[in-house]
Amino acid sequence: MAKQSEPLFDTVALIGVGLIGSSIARAVRRDQVARRVVAGVRPGASAKTLKSLNIVDVVIEDIPAAVKDADLVILCTPVGSYGEIAKAIAPQLKPGAIISDVGSVKQAVVDSVGPELPAGVHFVPAHPVAGTEHSGPAAGFAELFDGRWCILTPANGSDKDAVAKVKAFWERCGSKVEIMDAKHHDLVLAITSHVPHLIAYNIVGTASDLETVTNSEVIKYSAGGFRDFTRIAASDPTMWRDVFLTNKDAVLEMLGRFSEDLTALQRAIRWGDGQTLYELFSRTRAIRRQIIDAGQETARPDFGRQEKS
Amino acid sequence: MAKQSEPLFDTVALIGVGLIGSSIARAVRRDQVARRVVAGVRPGASAKTLKSLNIVDVVIEDIPAAVKDADLVILCTPVGSYGEIAKAIAPQLKPGAIISDVGSVKQAVVDSVGPELPAGVHFVPAHPVAGTEHSGPAAGFAELFDGRWCILTPANGSDKDAVAKVKAFWERCGSKVEIMDAKHHDLVLAITSHVPHLIAYNIVGTASDLETVTNSEVIKYSAGGFRDFTRIAASDPTMWRDVFLTNKDAVLEMLGRFSEDLTALQRAIRWGDGQTLYELFSRTRAIRRQIIDAGQETARPDFGRQEKS
Repeated sequence: MAKQSEPLFDTVALIGVGLIGSSIARAVRRDQVARRVVAGVRPGASAKTLKSLNIVDVVIEDIPAAVKDADLVILCTPVGSYGEIAKAIAPQLKPGAIISDVGSVKQAVVDSVGPELPAGVHFVPAHPVAGTEHSGPAAGFAELFDGRWCILTPANGSDKDAVAKVKAFWERCGSKVEIMDAKHHDLVLAITSHVPHLIAYNIVGTASDLETVTNSEVIKYSAGGFRDFTRIAASDPTMWRDVFLTNKDAVLEMLGRFSEDLTALQRAIRWGDGQTLYELFSRTRAIRRQIIDAGQETARPDFGRQEKS
Repeated sequence: MAKQSEPLFDTVALIGVGLIGSSIARAVRRDQVARRVVAGVRPGASAKTLKSLNIVDVVIEDIPAAVKDADLVILCTPVGSYGEIAKAIAPQLKPGAIISDVGSVKQAVVDSVGPELPAGVHFVPAHPVAGTEHSGPAAGFAELFDGRWCILTPANGSDKDAVAKVKAFWERCGSKVEIMDAKHHDLVLAITSHVPHLIAYNIVGTASDLETVTNSEVIKYSAGGFRDFTRIAASDPTMWRDVFLTNKDAVLEMLGRFSEDLTALQRAIRWGDGQTLYELFSRTRAIRRQIIDAGQETARPDFGRQEKS
């Protein structure tokens, strides 16, 4: 990760400051990536928490007012709210300002935010592929993005300097940066993130609805594998509702593949086809090894969860 | 967990010493649960590793010979091999010996092992609900069972003393113990362990077979959720093949529920039914909280995997 002492921006405005926004605030302060961080939030409990955390320079409980002096504005609310926020802040944006975001889907963001922005500002959509199952400003930490990928999906013909500055911003926050087409991003994330979340939410729902197995039994014997799924099924409900509503096509395509493959496995079980099961179970091990080797996962057994902290 | 200094058994024989068997050996030594641990293994590389680890008193590369003096024999090989092993060791078992196992399915074990055993030995099937994604004798550790549940499924009319001794054995190894019917065990574990493993194996397979998203992309962006699934999809292929072949009915039933629920979610996504998605995503969070409160999961965000070890 690039380490420089010169701030890249004078003022960065974060709109909505939950897990991701507050982690950005902390990472920006850690490496002095900007001279000043302004948080624009809706009035309420999380604004109060945010003030008490003292991780941004100013908290403004009025979103349009918060972007007035910003050189970089980052939308950090659930993606379903972006269009409305873009419309509200558009008249306040400084000429030459860069607008970015942290949304888990990208084509829908391009479609909803792009048309709202005035000429003379630069839109560079971004998605830091990082997070935890916790939500809210208190859940953030400066190291969240260290070694994780951040994907930028600028449109063709985007201002090269603006893209370079957003890239540098994320590198200073600890990320590695990749640039790709918005539609391709949505397909990649459908399989690496959205469908995994959906099936995790689904199995937790299935388990809790059974009448033959009690919830108490599900909880007691969850160490058999089930508990792993409860982590991502504990993610923010609003954020994830919006992801599925805005990345419908890619999610349905990947879900179709998943279900087709699962049906083949179901058939192998029904017919006692041990060879098919063994072959799949053998090759999946290699993928984890590669993820560990790529620095995207801990090599510690069981995520290191049984170690005393 | 009960802590007593008196050994419960004179000689314990472990048949097959991988992750679970070697963790038992270490837990037995930690708390002096038996005076002597004999390992009965097939000749080969893992026998060599086992000897070099020095965690058992004797390694015998001849399974029937290993059980001769044992008061407690625990089968720790994949469940598909139990019937054959039971047949081979039956003539060597000491009168009054207790036979147990660690298999992840129980009715099939009752059916395959029970008929092979001579009169005068006591069969107490057991399943410690604990493990990691690693395999082999070097992967074990004494703390594996601490605070985890071990389920016993003795038949009606089983010798009460034998059941009590196996219960005490697991408590001394750190476990909490529950007794239930073998068929019910298989249903409970189908949802808390077997189906979760199947869908984890399945999504890792689906992701690696895509032609529109490269394996390199799957690996790079796996922190979006996918990497969680690779952990249990890295579990021992032989063990898991045997689980699905021997717990077919319960797995197919639970898989049917899972698929039905997933189809409903798919429909909600297709029709833009955000309310259905939001409601499910909200109630799943509570289950994780209960698992953490029950001491079956770490409360640290992201399993604590990002903390430096």
